[in-house]
Amino acid sequence: MVNTFIFGHKNPDTDTIASALVMEDLQKELGNDVQAVRLGEISDETQYALDYFKVDAPALLETPLKGKDVILVDHNEFQQSADDITDATITMVVDHHRISNFETGAPLYYRAEPVGCTTTILKKMYNENSIEIKPEIAGLMISAIISDTLLFKSPTCTDQDKKACEELAEIANVDLNEYGLEMLKAGASVKGKTPEFLLNMDAKSFNMGDKLVRIAQVNTVDVKEVLEIQEDVENEINAIIANEQYDLFVFVITDILNSDSTVIALGKEQQAVAKAFNTELNGNVAVLPGVVSRKKQVVPPIDELLGK
Amino acid sequence: MVNTFIFGHKNPDTDTIASALVMEDLQKELGNDVQAVRLGEISDETQYALDYFKVDAPALLETPLKGKDVILVDHNEFQQSADDITDATITMVVDHHRISNFETGAPLYYRAEPVGCTTTILKKMYNENSIEIKPEIAGLMISAIISDTLLFKSPTCTDQDKKACEELAEIANVDLNEYGLEMLKAGASVKGKTPEFLLNMDAKSFNMGDKLVRIAQVNTVDVKEVLEIQEDVENEINAIIANEQYDLFVFVITDILNSDSTVIALGKEQQAVAKAFNTELNGNVAVLPGVVSRKKQVVPPIDELLGK
Repeated sequence: MVNTFIFGHKNPDTDTIASALVMEDLQKELGNDVQAVRLGEISDETQYALDYFKVDAPALLETPLKGKDVILVDHNEFQQSADDITDATITMVVDHHRISNFETGAPLYYRAEPVGCTTTILKKMYNENSIEIKPEIAGLMISAIISDTLLFKSPTCTDQDKKACEELAEIANVDLNEYGLEMLKAGASVKGKTPEFLLNMDAKSFNMGDKLVRIAQVNTVDVKEVLEIQEDVENEINAIIANEQYDLFVFVITDILNSDSTVIALGKEQQAVAKAFNTELNGNVAVLPGVVSRKKQVVPPIDELLGK
Repeated sequence: MVNTFIFGHKNPDTDTIASALVMEDLQKELGNDVQAVRLGEISDETQYALDYFKVDAPALLETPLKGKDVILVDHNEFQQSADDITDATITMVVDHHRISNFETGAPLYYRAEPVGCTTTILKKMYNENSIEIKPEIAGLMISAIISDTLLFKSPTCTDQDKKACEELAEIANVDLNEYGLEMLKAGASVKGKTPEFLLNMDAKSFNMGDKLVRIAQVNTVDVKEVLEIQEDVENEINAIIANEQYDLFVFVITDILNSDSTVIALGKEQQAVAKAFNTELNGNVAVLPGVVSRKKQVVPPIDELLGK
């Protein structure tokens, strides 16, 4: 059995799944015995990308990590990682998030860059190692960049992401706008989804000071479809808060066509959201114009308030 | 006034001072307004290197970090950094240590590689940015590599460190063995030094589980010179333990000619040292054959015991 697993965060999004598969390819090209795995279900958006480029999804991680080496992609915070991550030896991290609740006993290879997408960094690593990028690997990288930057509209998107994506599009032979919009739409349908499903599609927990915060996000082309089931969504959020002891739960509903977000905030630190965004909650809801990025636009102002 | 400071750890060694100066040069070459500073006194070894290559030492950091950007080199653990490090925005880290007690609110550039010396990584960054390395910068890089690897004898030394050092020696136009031994000897004289001085020359604190551990190290060509003042050294260690609430203080006296170490261990977790190295303490002292690296040979076995 392979001794090194590669995986991204829980509630995997397209960047996390793509990065694990791309890193697996890179490590195998370098002669290393590794296996990409996943920590949760594949989203509709990711499945669209996998189908389009004819790549199999990684298997679900079911092996205990005790005694294993792991390579983390697209995350570092332990609460977003495998439950038994502290049993493993982390030998490498490639990520584009803040660093928090992460530690190792020994030196490692850690590479984080403040770019929009992990695969933008991975592309550099292919170049640095003079390894040619296969068309389907380029396709996965493109899908991750489009997903994380909402087709370059997110403020997390850098010139590096855009340039990498354009170069990769030639290798993968796709029209970026056409493919990108189809892929985003495939993941943006909220119709018929249960509140439980929507709240777990892309949710991450954060320690901010002594507070525990959960921020879930969905992309949609029609925010109203979610607000129609607001009461059911709030009941589910309150159940999650009671169960997991969150001080704050923020549900970010992002309109990918208009590039803004509507948030539902609950929990005893609910008012931190109103304060962080200098707005008011109306029936637990606020509209945040121009906000599309959890990492760059939602986490920092709330962390600024609660983290002190 | 400059808005970005660059610094290494407290109790600066040659790698930390050299890395700050080298990073300052690199950032200035890239057009950024930065200033290298230091968090403590320059050691005799480092002064030898600075004098040899005619480079001024960085100034002592005396400005509060509130509102400043900082670039950390050769460390990441906050207890080894500036006292008000959490007031600053850390935009970049280049390091070769384990990651622990480190966090940021926002994404950053973080580059750690498991090599023997920070300047080995910095050399790559010059190459990646196609920036020529000046002779005196090469000299600082060489000095750091020789210091951290004890002239390639430490188990932390990798082929990358050796290769980088040999390439840099050509740029700096020095004979590695001759220069290296002279530099190490300049820093290895313990004669006439007070216990207080010896215990603070190169000391770092570590959180291991819920225990606070201090590990100080001196290099010498004559271990006996230190053991002659053992009683005074122990009195000083016990005073430090009482003052700073350390659970364990380990003083590592490394013989750079024979490549082994004698340790003095005190504190209520004293026996962890005996257990970690499968030996016994005789009058608080143990000899550890072949041990020269705090990072690779001293910290991990003690952390393995206390960190669980």
